[in-house]
Amino acid sequence: MSHASTLFAGKHALVTGGAGFIGSHIADALVEAGATVTIVDNLSTGFAAFVNPKARFEKIDLLDTTALDAAMKGQDFVFHLAANADIKDGLLHPRKDIEQNVVATQNVLEAMRANGVSKIAFSSTGSVYGEPEVFPTPENAPFPVQTSLYAASKVCGEGLLSAYAGGYGFSAWIFRFVSILGPRYTHGHVFDFWRKLSADPSKLAILGNGKQLKSYCHVEDCVEAIMTTIAKSESATRVHVHNIGRPDMLEVNQSVGWICETLGVTPELVYSGGERGWVGDSPKILLATERLEKLGWKPRHTLHDSVLATLRFLRENPWVADRS
Amino acid sequence: MSHASTLFAGKHALVTGGAGFIGSHIADALVEAGATVTIVDNLSTGFAAFVNPKARFEKIDLLDTTALDAAMKGQDFVFHLAANADIKDGLLHPRKDIEQNVVATQNVLEAMRANGVSKIAFSSTGSVYGEPEVFPTPENAPFPVQTSLYAASKVCGEGLLSAYAGGYGFSAWIFRFVSILGPRYTHGHVFDFWRKLSADPSKLAILGNGKQLKSYCHVEDCVEAIMTTIAKSESATRVHVHNIGRPDMLEVNQSVGWICETLGVTPELVYSGGERGWVGDSPKILLATERLEKLGWKPRHTLHDSVLATLRFLRENPWVADRS
Repeated sequence: MSHASTLFAGKHALVTGGAGFIGSHIADALVEAGATVTIVDNLSTGFAAFVNPKARFEKIDLLDTTALDAAMKGQDFVFHLAANADIKDGLLHPRKDIEQNVVATQNVLEAMRANGVSKIAFSSTGSVYGEPEVFPTPENAPFPVQTSLYAASKVCGEGLLSAYAGGYGFSAWIFRFVSILGPRYTHGHVFDFWRKLSADPSKLAILGNGKQLKSYCHVEDCVEAIMTTIAKSESATRVHVHNIGRPDMLEVNQSVGWICETLGVTPELVYSGGERGWVGDSPKILLATERLEKLGWKPRHTLHDSVLATLRFLRENPWVADRS
Repeated sequence: MSHASTLFAGKHALVTGGAGFIGSHIADALVEAGATVTIVDNLSTGFAAFVNPKARFEKIDLLDTTALDAAMKGQDFVFHLAANADIKDGLLHPRKDIEQNVVATQNVLEAMRANGVSKIAFSSTGSVYGEPEVFPTPENAPFPVQTSLYAASKVCGEGLLSAYAGGYGFSAWIFRFVSILGPRYTHGHVFDFWRKLSADPSKLAILGNGKQLKSYCHVEDCVEAIMTTIAKSESATRVHVHNIGRPDMLEVNQSVGWICETLGVTPELVYSGGERGWVGDSPKILLATERLEKLGWKPRHTLHDSVLATLRFLRENPWVADRS
């Protein structure tokens, strides 16, 4: 029996952002496990096509506290995946991270409190480490200076969960993700490169010098990591913080090579230059995952697999490019 | 010439929370230094009597972005001291920390951005370290788990400043305070004990076991630390994070002894019990201040002085008890 089945068979689970990339995979796992699943999503970046047909779907913006409160009734567990995940362009709309990632997160917590729901898993990000000095970066790395609004808003989300755990007896699982790849991936560098090359295979603009070292993880490994952590966490502990990532890194240029090879194109590569792809981009990301591995989790997909699975999805679902 | 004069003579400075405890002392120092000072305060916890008469005073709530924007015009420097500083009772009104400390801070930053103001000093808190494992706790202590809504909101404020520094070229000075004591002190344990003993000198209720070890600093030393840091910071660095505190600690019981001695009372002491005074209270606070001392700052007031100066102020200004 899977960890998800052990935990969630016969339970009621609410997934915010359940029409999005990672959220929809979590919803699928919960449905598969025999849970009664409610998906809450405003479809701003999610897609109706990703919604599990066996789940109840509510098109709700998390700033609508009345609707959120109604959807929360009778739930046993919340997976809070909804977020403004547009890290790169955060500076174009600086209020969005605070509204969608801080205020929305507190709205979820308040709806839980009002309805006696006290268990929550939360998607944070490896970018909360800023530009770390320690690699691989552990969960207790030195107190970082934030480098993006997105990360600042996620640190706040983490803090809210922790404060609700301490103050109101919530149990909180906080996951700091590397970039996740795989089916239903609809933003990030593989998506951007694929879209640009589909439009013009003769050249490819690359942000930075292409030498940024990034860590990735396949969405199936990510969902398994989340379920394993929840299943194996000591119940006496109220705040569980776990990195999710793979033990290796990929140079952006290498990823570009795989993408071009798969698409059968040989574009001219045009670099914007500099170590960073954008303001707040971290030139090197590698998260320590010992804490997760001690619980028995191991990633099953290689970096190469993960990029190829993503491209396969994009090729089979070219319509996802229309909106993003 | 004082650091403040070197920096601020002839400049325009805006102080949010400038009718409050620490903010009013900063406004005084700026006026003294020859700056043109605007004080913005909603008087929710500040007092009109603390407003420097040579400053322009605007009764503005920081959630009122139009009024804030108008007050920001022509400023050179912002001291953002306004905050919901009610740590102990944060769980009674959980949205207040997010509104007053996160949204309000972003409003200040957005008003600055709209008006081309890019230098900001910010009052954070030593409670962002949660329950630290390292004492004295340095600025780069291990990434903490938050234990209060107040600290979670301040971590977010810090992150916002850092992201605006990286993204929009702001210069940010972040100060993590221990509890500050001295004239115009109107909340915290010395105030609470003084008020309780004034009402009933026969007994004193003490939260926790009284053995909590806290660090304090006199407000004059605090203001001097802020001005020294700004004066001596390398201009190439955009985010400056500094603890402000003294190198010693005070047991709550010892402070109770000094207060009783000063008031000439011998109450029965009634402890609520437990290591912590309230949920999220840290049983031990001691911040490392090497980073600050390297800039030439040293505290001039002892702990004993600081408690006594606070009591002197409270005795001379009993009216402050009416509102808090």
